[in-house]
Amino acid sequence: MASVAWLNGSPADTALAFSRGLHYGDGVFRTLLKYDRQIIDIDGQLEKLAADSAVLDLRFDGLSPLRQEIFDASTNLDTGVIKVLLLRAGAGRGYRPPAESSADRLVLCYPLPAFEARCWRTGITATKSDFTLAAQPQLAGIKHLNRLEQVLASRSWPASSDEVILRDDGGRPICGSRSNLFWLQQGVLCTPLLNRCGVAGRMRARILTLAQQLGIETRIEAFEWHALMAADEAFVSNSLIGIWPLRQLDGQVWSAPGPMTADLMRGLAHPTLSFL
Amino acid sequence: MASVAWLNGSPADTALAFSRGLHYGDGVFRTLLKYDRQIIDIDGQLEKLAADSAVLDLRFDGLSPLRQEIFDASTNLDTGVIKVLLLRAGAGRGYRPPAESSADRLVLCYPLPAFEARCWRTGITATKSDFTLAAQPQLAGIKHLNRLEQVLASRSWPASSDEVILRDDGGRPICGSRSNLFWLQQGVLCTPLLNRCGVAGRMRARILTLAQQLGIETRIEAFEWHALMAADEAFVSNSLIGIWPLRQLDGQVWSAPGPMTADLMRGLAHPTLSFL
Repeated sequence: MASVAWLNGSPADTALAFSRGLHYGDGVFRTLLKYDRQIIDIDGQLEKLAADSAVLDLRFDGLSPLRQEIFDASTNLDTGVIKVLLLRAGAGRGYRPPAESSADRLVLCYPLPAFEARCWRTGITATKSDFTLAAQPQLAGIKHLNRLEQVLASRSWPASSDEVILRDDGGRPICGSRSNLFWLQQGVLCTPLLNRCGVAGRMRARILTLAQQLGIETRIEAFEWHALMAADEAFVSNSLIGIWPLRQLDGQVWSAPGPMTADLMRGLAHPTLSFL
Repeated sequence: MASVAWLNGSPADTALAFSRGLHYGDGVFRTLLKYDRQIIDIDGQLEKLAADSAVLDLRFDGLSPLRQEIFDASTNLDTGVIKVLLLRAGAGRGYRPPAESSADRLVLCYPLPAFEARCWRTGITATKSDFTLAAQPQLAGIKHLNRLEQVLASRSWPASSDEVILRDDGGRPICGSRSNLFWLQQGVLCTPLLNRCGVAGRMRARILTLAQQLGIETRIEAFEWHALMAADEAFVSNSLIGIWPLRQLDGQVWSAPGPMTADLMRGLAHPTLSFL
């Protein structure tokens, strides 16, 4: 018999029903902001997508056709979210990937989430999560489709909190559930090393580059939790929000945005700042 | 604008394109053998599916309707593989799941892979993988859709090998890339404890039950690698193959099947034995 796929009792589209992306999370993705008809940082995003693909030995036909496809798919989107997924082609039977792995390209457009201006203006409240990120150096830093840890971490989240901060198996701060984590300590910009767990966002890379342009020293280390708690100011970042200052994390309260965070927000000039 | 989904440049089926199963691997699955119009162990499989769903706080409308759907979807399949996936319903924007999470049901039918009779008859050759499984106690044992570790482990696999044996971060043996692992030591059936990593297959549970019925003592422990190497006989299992004796693993060579493995294979009476 031919292969059969039923979704909720009705025949399903087989292209995705048998996808290795669905069956194994065998793929990578990026989340892009389109704002006022501009796709922010598209070249940097696509370069990181290509780098992450290479870790999984996942090939696709060049960045230019994908770039064009993203523009075409989002032509009617003025402002919103574009999510680009590369899924290893071939049906999901057997973990072993084909020797020559090409990628299926999935481009999705969504409305922009309804963020509140207070998140930029006076900062967010975060909570230390009890959920521990597993150490998997071979997948650390890359934005792949195995994201159950983020789902579990997001599940138990106080209503008063805007984000949870996740730690590694040694209790070290790593990232937010959907953001990267930074703080300032005596004028030095600090962010966790992501060689054992965590996702290295493009906004994280852009902030690190910006800091150097502004003459701010940076440290990327396996910091202990108390280093974060002793910070002078702190913030989280991702490609949709840019920077959200941290106003409160467990017992610690910061002025938000702190002066250097405000400098970085101005320097970044992320378009969602116009919500202020 | 409405949400848009393009797959390889053409409009995609939105039900799966936006699925949390695809975006996060937010779901669970089972792989069932249908042989000569009988779905093997369907009740045990569905019970374990329900138990795994509960870990992810994923609800579905009872086992009976799902059971009927599996029968209906596979009505034209005499012998083959049925894969059942439960995917958390709701679009994949934001890791945080809806408070009341129901599941979409995906039922797929495939032909049976072309296994070789020698795998049962004289056993398989396995290799110790260099890939280390990450420790994530909150997901250990459950058959969820985050399977990139198995994909990576399967990628570098000598052509002479039928399976790779994976270890945890302490170098302890855990499982095969697509199988559970057992060995016999002075008449005791041993299998690794799966509380930090690994997947607890239904065939593993069935073999442990069968051993007790046959009066064979069992030990489920965090064994060291040398315990496996010192075994008298060894085998791997899953729901498609039943039991494959291990003939060779790195330097170690066993008679395959060993006498107690042969007893278990007979007691299990798995239908693919008829390939012998």
